[in-house]
Amino acid sequence: MLIIGELINTSRKAIKEAVENRDGAYIQQVAKEQVEAGANYVDINCGTMVFNEVEVMEWLVNTVQEVVQAPLCIDTPNPVAMEAGLNLCKYGQPMINSISDEKERFAQVLPLVLKYKAKVVALCMDDTGIPETAQDRIRVADSLYTKLTAVGVADEDIYFDPLVKPVSSVETAGLEVLDTIKLIKEKYPQVHFTCGLSNVSYGLPNRKILNRLFVVQTMTVGMDGYILNPTDKEMMGAIYSGLALLGQDAYCMNYLSAHRKGLFE
Amino acid sequence: MLIIGELINTSRKAIKEAVENRDGAYIQQVAKEQVEAGANYVDINCGTMVFNEVEVMEWLVNTVQEVVQAPLCIDTPNPVAMEAGLNLCKYGQPMINSISDEKERFAQVLPLVLKYKAKVVALCMDDTGIPETAQDRIRVADSLYTKLTAVGVADEDIYFDPLVKPVSSVETAGLEVLDTIKLIKEKYPQVHFTCGLSNVSYGLPNRKILNRLFVVQTMTVGMDGYILNPTDKEMMGAIYSGLALLGQDAYCMNYLSAHRKGLFE
Repeated sequence: MLIIGELINTSRKAIKEAVENRDGAYIQQVAKEQVEAGANYVDINCGTMVFNEVEVMEWLVNTVQEVVQAPLCIDTPNPVAMEAGLNLCKYGQPMINSISDEKERFAQVLPLVLKYKAKVVALCMDDTGIPETAQDRIRVADSLYTKLTAVGVADEDIYFDPLVKPVSSVETAGLEVLDTIKLIKEKYPQVHFTCGLSNVSYGLPNRKILNRLFVVQTMTVGMDGYILNPTDKEMMGAIYSGLALLGQDAYCMNYLSAHRKGLFE
Repeated sequence: MLIIGELINTSRKAIKEAVENRDGAYIQQVAKEQVEAGANYVDINCGTMVFNEVEVMEWLVNTVQEVVQAPLCIDTPNPVAMEAGLNLCKYGQPMINSISDEKERFAQVLPLVLKYKAKVVALCMDDTGIPETAQDRIRVADSLYTKLTAVGVADEDIYFDPLVKPVSSVETAGLEVLDTIKLIKEKYPQVHFTCGLSNVSYGLPNRKILNRLFVVQTMTVGMDGYILNPTDKEMMGAIYSGLALLGQDAYCMNYLSAHRKGLFE
């Protein structure tokens, strides 16, 4: 299970302010808290800083790496900022968030995936947008898989993101994602998955409960990575519970450890 | 989704006392609360009353039917008490809990399934006990399916219970149940499922969380019936959430109704 800590994102007010004030101590505190809470990767997203994204990316990557040795997930649609971030990554295998089957984006990001031997989040979308059905997502996933593996990207480095839409607008939105995971896993058993799935609950009350249960549902059909807030105790508790119930936690040791750490209080 | 309210069971102290005092008002209150909370069936289990089970079964069935019109699930290993209960059922199609592939039990219960045209819970066990693996459970399910349908029991009236063991003793216990559901559903798409699954969390802390998440996991692979306490708001909230996320709740109407009823508070 790969947990990517999502909190260092300039679309969040506290992070935006810390970036504007170059308050490195706050950024470092958020990075440390996420890793201590169980994040395997730390996401760095400063996509809202449109006028100086490259400079902010470099500052964030350096600032975070002063205090944590977790690998980073460089999260931006801007290939220049992406390379600036990747170029500074010191620990482990970096992750790129993201490539897609949009022609221009694919052409811009692929060289970076190869140059930095990065894990890559592959969004199941192309120039026609986000597909509605599982079958249409699979068509995009097939195309991405073929093109990525043809140039030597290992199956294990591909993290498909099925892209989640709200069930409040299309009632089968969650089901299509579950079916997408099952179908991709059948065809390509070695690839991985990741997604940010809070979209699923958009427009509904009790969003945190829905998000948490959708994590458990997607885990049940094979999703093995999430971009989320690892300091959300109930979410992490649900993940440890889900792993224990799925037979992925020998002697329930991680579950019991999470219990002792107070995740279920 | 079939919810069988489990509370009227003489292994529970309050029910045992109410039965001993023939406190019909209390039994009726428990029956009404379960139906109001969403139970489609009311389970009647007085298996602990070994000396007068038949008389208690008749009293419970009559007492409950004075105040609710939900069909009943007659829950006993004793075929005499089972028939006494079935014979008094007035509303809808009764349910028998349970048959199994144990020779004697099968021979005793089958005539009652046919005579009362009942739905029947079919336990995935035989005279060798509860199987460990999904494949062994499927072998028992195949045998039960073949014998039940050969004498005219409709697929839709069979509710397979995969029988849940604790993950604390065998770490793959939950996974085997999930695999069992998937395999039975592939082979026999018209049958249903039900189970009481609190066993899964035996021996671990935070049992209510584990039980709730295991309901959501089993729903995700096709389980469509549960024997549980329908007045447990968080459990019912998880079920309504799960159905909305699985595309089984048009316009999220049941989810929103559950929200307005305070199930998520």
